[in-house]
Formats: sequence, structure tokens, C-alpha cells
Amino acid sequence: MTRDNKNSDRSEANNIGFIGLGSMGSRMAAHLCARGYRVRGHDVRAEARAAFEKEGGIWADAAKDAALGADFLVLMVVNVGQAEQLLFEAGVLDALPKESGVVLMATCPAADVERISKAVAKAGRSFVDAPVSGGVAGAASATLTIMAACANETFARAKPVLQAMGDKVHHVGSSPGQGALVKTINQLLCGVHLAAAAEAVSLGAQADIDPQVLINIFSESSASSWMLRDRGSRMIAGEPQVTSAIDIFVKDLGIVLDAGQRLKAPTPLASIAQQMFLAVSGQGFGQVDDSQVVRAYRAMTSVSGR
Amino acid sequence: MTRDNKNSDRSEANNIGFIGLGSMGSRMAAHLCARGYRVRGHDVRAEARAAFEKEGGIWADAAKDAALGADFLVLMVVNVGQAEQLLFEAGVLDALPKESGVVLMATCPAADVERISKAVAKAGRSFVDAPVSGGVAGAASATLTIMAACANETFARAKPVLQAMGDKVHHVGSSPGQGALVKTINQLLCGVHLAAAAEAVSLGAQADIDPQVLINIFSESSASSWMLRDRGSRMIAGEPQVTSAIDIFVKDLGIVLDAGQRLKAPTPLASIAQQMFLAVSGQGFGQVDDSQVVRAYRAMTSVSGR
Repeated sequence: MTRDNKNSDRSEANNIGFIGLGSMGSRMAAHLCARGYRVRGHDVRAEARAAFEKEGGIWADAAKDAALGADFLVLMVVNVGQAEQLLFEAGVLDALPKESGVVLMATCPAADVERISKAVAKAGRSFVDAPVSGGVAGAASATLTIMAACANETFARAKPVLQAMGDKVHHVGSSPGQGALVKTINQLLCGVHLAAAAEAVSLGAQADIDPQVLINIFSESSASSWMLRDRGSRMIAGEPQVTSAIDIFVKDLGIVLDAGQRLKAPTPLASIAQQMFLAVSGQGFGQVDDSQVVRAYRAMTSVSGR
Repeated sequence: MTRDNKNSDRSEANNIGFIGLGSMGSRMAAHLCARGYRVRGHDVRAEARAAFEKEGGIWADAAKDAALGADFLVLMVVNVGQAEQLLFEAGVLDALPKESGVVLMATCPAADVERISKAVAKAGRSFVDAPVSGGVAGAASATLTIMAACANETFARAKPVLQAMGDKVHHVGSSPGQGALVKTINQLLCGVHLAAAAEAVSLGAQADIDPQVLINIFSESSASSWMLRDRGSRMIAGEPQVTSAIDIFVKDLGIVLDAGQRLKAPTPLASIAQQMFLAVSGQGFGQVDDSQVVRAYRAMTSVSGR
């Protein structure tokens, strides 16, 4: 793919602003450059500049300058607080042309996304709620899952831009906040599956069954889950590598419970799963790998080391 | 595979007794015949005879005759009650040669398996606790997962026999009952994953997100599970095909909770999941497809038809 195919396989959107060039954002922006988009990017860390320019990006010293002339402004920042600060305090929304759109790709609670989308709409810009899953690996290979919620006509225009970054682009609904909720529900399943794997190996341990044997069997049986296959071996390792910490699931499952409360939808399994992650955090292990939710079960039965 | 390879790829065990030639057992026995084993089989239903003989099996009119001269006697019966009746009341154990072994492949609670194995050992025969997963499809293609628990020397002798029926043969421990427990734990994960999928689509439904879109996304994301991929679409169908009923999980998760209580291992997620299946059974839908655990969540929020 070269930067020459400017007019193939994408909408009339040519100019992209991109704020948040971290481990994921830098790779997503690089794919936009490779597809021929003119990308003006900014990051609070000035050291992000060299790598971005190497990919063909145009560096913006101030965040609001990234929005100048953009058809879509992508926000791949850390949290909702940064997104609001940039849009409403740092002048980014005012700098964005009137007919353009904001694409919020950071993971944020649905209620916050709804609030931001209303403020953006009030300012006369369109809004795409578009969280991703797939992590740094998915960002690097442009194989992210993207869960977009926005009006149909906005989605039609934004789709080619999103497809430059992910190969599984879903239009999940027309109301911003629905994309964030799908991401939230994704985390509900991940958290419950991980705690269930811990419950399974812990029950086996009480009968002296080797947990690695269980992981091997369940990885290829009807009991399998993506989380069990990915985290199973780390669950029973002594000092596992940390790819995502216990406290991330305390937070993410907290967002699930908040969403359930707001929507008046009971989520009993998610509530129990969160208690298990919270227990491990309370043991002082909030920063260890999330596979260590098994420590909550071990503590309950006081079977150390299993 | 032909019946000529009598001496390849298996132990000195040549004669197999096989009781229980139902939808799974008949296919498992056929694979033993195809591998060159001399299989004497019996089933309470005389109509099983013709198909069994067609595969090369030798029909036994009485259950105990299946055990005559057998190196291993396989029990693929409906439940633990049938297994005990056959072994201890119908004379099957007495008919089995002293140096031979009983292979219990039916799904039974671990505590019952322990009790049977002790009685078999007391009678001087060896015992293999070897439940399977994979269903009729796995039985037909000899791709069952087999979870065997028995002494090492017994496993060495039984392994080729088991490998004729399954391609994933695991020796999970040396104490009979451990195999049954692994199968129990498999069902813990299946039941929790299924209820979690229902919880996920129900939370989405409260925000008007199309459940089929959720199933599509989660089938290929980090939220995926075997159960979600297999049952997801049936969960949201009007009158889904029944491959396994709600009441099966009420029973199987009941076995999980009993095992946890016996082993003093808390299983909070399994306990919540069982309540969800039980609720649907209480609604009068114990015989509908297990994917309909979603009806428990629908009932809680009174959102009919979603």
C-alpha cells in the first residue's frame, strides 16, 4: 500500500487530525498515512514526533493545530478527562471545521461518551463513538475490532477511515454511547471468563488435579474461552508477565456495574467477578497480572501455591 | 483403518466388553471394532444388535456375557445407577476376569465414581474413571476428549483402547473420581460462559443494541467462548433447536456445587449461574434449549422478546 492511492477505497475525507500517538495511536496513525491520508498529529510527549514524521505524518505543536482543516479528528487519548480537556478547554473543537467530525476511539464509559457527543453536536460537528479492541498487536497490524456508534450518514463517511485501522468495523447503533457500551460488555465477558477460569482450576486444586492439565484440556474443549487460552498458563505461573493488571478489571467491571445500574439491567455474574478482582487488589496485588485473580480463590481456601 | 491391523498401535488388550450401545456408545464401539479389537457388546435395547453386528461386534444377550474374557469392560451407560446395577447386581463384575479392568465412561459425580472404584478394587479388578466430552459428533469421528484417572500401570494398558475412541486422551490423575471431577469442572465453565453470554446480550438489549451484532463481535474478540460461539445465535432465536436442555445445566451445575461443598471449595460464579438456569426451569422451560438461560435475564427486566 502506498501513499499514491489517495482516491481509492475511501471516502472524500482526506485530512485527518490525530491526537494521542501512544503505543496504539502511533500505529493507527501510521496506517492512515500508509493509506494516503494527510494526517496532522499531536501528542503531549514531544518525543512522539520523530516516529510519526517518519511514517509520513505532519506534526502539530499544539493540539488544536491537529484539528485545522481536518475532515475527521481522531482522539486516541488515555481517558475521558483528556478527551474533554482537549475538545472543550484546549480549543480543539473550535479549531475543527464546522462540517467535520470527532472520532473518539479511547475507551470511555458510555454515559461520558453520551455527554461529550451532545456537546459536540451542539457545536455543530458530527461525532463517532468508536472504541477499539485488539490491543497494541491489533493496532500494529490494522486488525483492530472497532465498535462504532453514530448516525448512518456519518458512519458512511467515517467507515473507510476506520477500515484503515481495523479489519472488523461494526456499526453497532446510531446513538453515541452504544459503541462504548459494547466495549464495556466485551469487558464484562472477559472479566467473568477470567474469574471462571480461576474458579475452575481452584476447584480442581482441592482434589489435587494439576492445573496445567486442566488448562490444556479446557483450552480445546467446550469449556474454552479466549481468556482461558490466553491467560491460563500465566494463572499458574509463579511470577507471570503483566500484560494487563488486576486493577484494570476492578475498574472495567466497575464500569460494567455502573452501566447496568444506569440501564437498570442486573449483572450478577459481573458483580461476583468484580469482587474477586477487588479481593486480590485488597491483598495488595492490584498491579500484578490479571490472571492472578486466582489469588482470591486461593486465599478463600488457604491453599498456598496452587 | 481396517480390521487387519490387530497388532499395531495398541496394548496387549485384545478383548473388550462394551455395555451401553446408545447414540454415543454404538459409535465408540464401532471404532474399537475398526481398530481390530474383539468387542462383545450389550445394550438393554435389543434393537441395538443389528447395527453393532454390522460393525463387526459380537452381541451378548445378557449384560454379564459381555464381560466374559474381556481385558477391559467399558460402561457407556446413562447414569451411575445403571453402572452400579450392572456391576454389582447383574453379575457383570463377577463375570469379568480377575486381571481385567472396568472403564467407566458415563458421566457420573466424582463421589459416586470413588465409591464404585473402591468396590471394584475390593473385588480385585482394576478401574479406569474415564468420562468423555465431545458428544455424538466426537464419538462418531473418534475425536472425543477423554479424561482418565487411574493408576499409572492401568493407564498404560488402557491408553490404546481409549485412543481408539478419542484423539485427546488425558491422564488427569491416579485416583478414580478425578476424571469425573474434571468433567464436572468442564461443565462449570460451560454453564458460567453460557449465563455470561446471556448477561451480556441482555445488558446490550437495555440500550437497544442488536443482540446479533453483539454475538458477531464477541465471537471473534477477546470476549469469545466456545459456548457463546456455539449457542449465541440460538440464544436470540424464537424457537431454537434443543441440543441440550436447561435442566441438564440445572443438574450439572448442581453436581459442581455438590463437588465444591464436598471439597470445601467455594464456586460463587457457578452458584449464580445455576440460579439463572433454575429460574428458567421454574418458568416452566426446563426442556427448552440451554441457550434460553437468557429468559432469566429477560424476566428480571421484563423486556419481552429481546
